[in-house]
Amino acid sequence: MPRVTIQLVEGRTVQQKREMAREITESITRICDVPKTAVTIYFDDMPKDSYSKAGILVCDENK
Amino acid sequence: MPRVTIQLVEGRTVQQKREMAREITESITRICDVPKTAVTIYFDDMPKDSYSKAGILVCDENK
Amino acid sequence: MPRVTIQLVEGRTVQQKREMAREITESITRICDVPKTAVTIYFDDMPKDSYSKAGILVCDENK
Amino acid sequence: MPRVTIQLVEGRTVQQKREMAREITESITRICDVPKTAVTIYFDDMPKDSYSKAGILVCDENK
Amino acid sequence: MPRVTIQLVEGRTVQQKREMAREITESITRICDVPKTAVTIYFDDMPKDSYSKAGILVCDENK
Amino acid sequence: MPRVTIQLVEGRTVQQKREMAREITESITRICDVPKTAVTIYFDDMPKDSYSKAGILVCDENK
Repeated sequence: MPRVTIQLVEGRTVQQKREMAREITESITRICDVPKTAVTIYFDDMPKDSYSKAGILVCDENK
Repeated sequence: MPRVTIQLVEGRTVQQKREMAREITESITRICDVPKTAVTIYFDDMPKDSYSKAGILVCDENK
Repeated sequence: MPRVTIQLVEGRTVQQKREMAREITESITRICDVPKTAVTIYFDDMPKDSYSKAGILVCDENK
Repeated sequence: MPRVTIQLVEGRTVQQKREMAREITESITRICDVPKTAVTIYFDDMPKDSYSKAGILVCDENK
Repeated sequence: MPRVTIQLVEGRTVQQKREMAREITESITRICDVPKTAVTIYFDDMPKDSYSKAGILVCDENK
Repeated sequence: MPRVTIQLVEGRTVQQKREMAREITESITRICDVPKTAVTIYFDDMPKDSYSKAGILVCDENK
């Protein structure tokens, strides 16, 4: 039942998501003692023109 | 005011979203006794390479 | 796999959540043709001093 | 640390997001007395066929 | 229709939420040209033992 | 910048959250090559009368 959401600025590869999915599921399964099939993870890609830090959109940084 | 979010793996049709929107809004309106206009629903499509169950991305299943 | 989240201002009873859980799960199962066990619903209660509409917190309405 | 998410029906421009990012970050920084760098904002665009109000998808309104 | 969620570590006062609700609603209304009543904001308080930065829970900082 | 949210049925201990925070932050930092301080994790506890699977609230299971 653990529902995980990971919000990342766009640009991560499928291979990176694949590795995170495997490791994070393993960590939660072991630490919380839940079955592996109960863990779902959603990688929510955030476009660079749709995420800001300190009031600056990522697409505007270093300008 | 009920704000509903439904996260689905991509592939549902607009017709399926249309039917869910109508039925779920009707259920919440009737059970919670709130005006219909207060119910908003967001269908958040999750790409197959961005959702994992049991540590496996949907795009890697059955391989 | 459909992950549903329903954000409601606090005050709904367990009986109301029970009925919504049953009906909404039934709707999604039938319309999307997914197994019932794949549908999870989280009712996220929002305190009256933590939700605003039109810039007014619910706890400040009708004052 | 304040994590802000703003869900909007698609169609806002980058310039509108830029202005909201600046103003909202400024408001939170001043009112909560947190450093500007602690405030992140994610603008989550909702497609018109994936958001409903009163049980009607935005793409079906005015038909 | 803009649905805003602000996740903050617990400890903010109702007065701080009241001011943020007013200012942020005003910003979005003006910049996006939407009616005030369409803007909802949810302040989601995160307990200090349930939020981590850099792998450290807030309740464990400065120990 | 990775913003992680983990929704769990209530009952996990602070020690379990502490371990998950450490391990998951370490995994994301290594796999995505981001600084540790950029990773925030929010553990969102779901009450047993507010989460359903297969249309049944957790508080009603095994009855």
